[in-house]
Amino acid sequence: MNITIVGLGVIGGSYALALKPLKKYRLFAIDKDEDTLRKAEKLGIIEKGYSLEDNVEEVIKNSDIIIISIYPSLVKSFIENNKAYFAKGTVITDATGVKGLFAQEIIKILPDGVDFIFAHPMAGREKKGLDYASAEVFKGANFIITPIDNNAISNLKLIENLAYEMGFSNVKYLGLKEHDNIIAYTSQLPHVLAVSLINSEALNEDTGKCIGDSYRDLTRIANINAELWSELFLGNKENLLKNIYAFEHEMKTIKEALIRDDKASLEEIFKKSTSRREKL
Amino acid sequence: MNITIVGLGVIGGSYALALKPLKKYRLFAIDKDEDTLRKAEKLGIIEKGYSLEDNVEEVIKNSDIIIISIYPSLVKSFIENNKAYFAKGTVITDATGVKGLFAQEIIKILPDGVDFIFAHPMAGREKKGLDYASAEVFKGANFIITPIDNNAISNLKLIENLAYEMGFSNVKYLGLKEHDNIIAYTSQLPHVLAVSLINSEALNEDTGKCIGDSYRDLTRIANINAELWSELFLGNKENLLKNIYAFEHEMKTIKEALIRDDKASLEEIFKKSTSRREKL
Repeated sequence: MNITIVGLGVIGGSYALALKPLKKYRLFAIDKDEDTLRKAEKLGIIEKGYSLEDNVEEVIKNSDIIIISIYPSLVKSFIENNKAYFAKGTVITDATGVKGLFAQEIIKILPDGVDFIFAHPMAGREKKGLDYASAEVFKGANFIITPIDNNAISNLKLIENLAYEMGFSNVKYLGLKEHDNIIAYTSQLPHVLAVSLINSEALNEDTGKCIGDSYRDLTRIANINAELWSELFLGNKENLLKNIYAFEHEMKTIKEALIRDDKASLEEIFKKSTSRREKL
Repeated sequence: MNITIVGLGVIGGSYALALKPLKKYRLFAIDKDEDTLRKAEKLGIIEKGYSLEDNVEEVIKNSDIIIISIYPSLVKSFIENNKAYFAKGTVITDATGVKGLFAQEIIKILPDGVDFIFAHPMAGREKKGLDYASAEVFKGANFIITPIDNNAISNLKLIENLAYEMGFSNVKYLGLKEHDNIIAYTSQLPHVLAVSLINSEALNEDTGKCIGDSYRDLTRIANINAELWSELFLGNKENLLKNIYAFEHEMKTIKEALIRDDKASLEEIFKKSTSRREKL
């Protein structure tokens, strides 16, 4: 089976690293960066890489599965530009962090005979680029598939199976809207908090000497791919705002308890959070 | 040198575990829980444990250093109740997460000839009790000493040295007020965020299957000792509120950029957070 990875960045590279040792797939890649492709070939992560200047007709035509892991805004034009090359029966999948509007746009322009299985691996790293790719991040992680009406069951199973082969331990099926609603809470809101926390103070030398693990853990994801995450946030704006308001409402209960010197309420809030965290 | 640890919970127990292997200290403990003391003796973590029913005069009298790691509200009464027993030259230290008002109260009732070196190890675990104690959490962590006017330099050095011996890699000296101001940001605000995040949604089975490392990292400290942290929050209320307001102001810039569909501003905010995180 031939798999082509479009975008050999930190996520695309991690797919390649996770699939390579299985030895049952021939791996190819398309990327805008020549150096990345030559490096991946040299390391044996892929068999052959194609830049945007190369003729990609053949590699696309011969792909059984195409994994697209580029910025959300570029996915549509990649498909449009290469519309003529996809063979009937090709399965496309992606790694995009928002689904609703994004998927609707893609569905409209999808060539006949091509099945797009929208997916979202719930794992990643703060850094970008192939150098930070790692198969390890997928181990034990969650993988979400958001099926659409036209998806063939056999193709959904194919991508589900691929996820398990790469080391994911849970594959969850969700509707497009449902996905965006949940992800606004489990992924985007934490990024809002991390970014706002680290930006909210004049960090100085003293601050750095007074941090513990909690601060380190909470701000890890404040190191963020600005272009990607601004696209993801705006692509899920309503859900994210709704979740920010819900968070603000919760934080308000702590603020008010503090202002009232209300120890009992604080303890109740903490007991609730402890019990929720233990249930995770 | 004899060291007595008052309160053999997760922090007091970790002190004992970190000091024991050095073999230069004889370790004793005072705790309200008999089972904990017998367990610690059996495991060889301490030489002998004393419950509140025991006569603690001798163990206190013979202590060169007393490490108090009990709830902030209990420290004052422990000192008052045992006032008559401290030998001249005894060094007391603590592990309390707030210092300002707390230390002022203690200073007033401190017996003559006893030197209290206020300290705050910036490490810990979510769980409480000796079973979760570990010397590992101190390795490479930050240790803060908040000196007061009467502290002898030699005693400050003694506790500083103890911190390095236990594996801490930085010892930072801060004023009492300065400590509380910084800690409201580096420790208390992260706990407010973690608790509010996990409490702000109706968690269900789907949510649990859609979380990634970021959510897991951000909510780890939502598992929180309710009694201890409500004391710590209320003991540093003004600073904490100030830091919550600063955080809210930062989060507002993200909200407003979202509402305006302002990609450029979001990118700028993310670039700022990335650069700050990298400097940590």
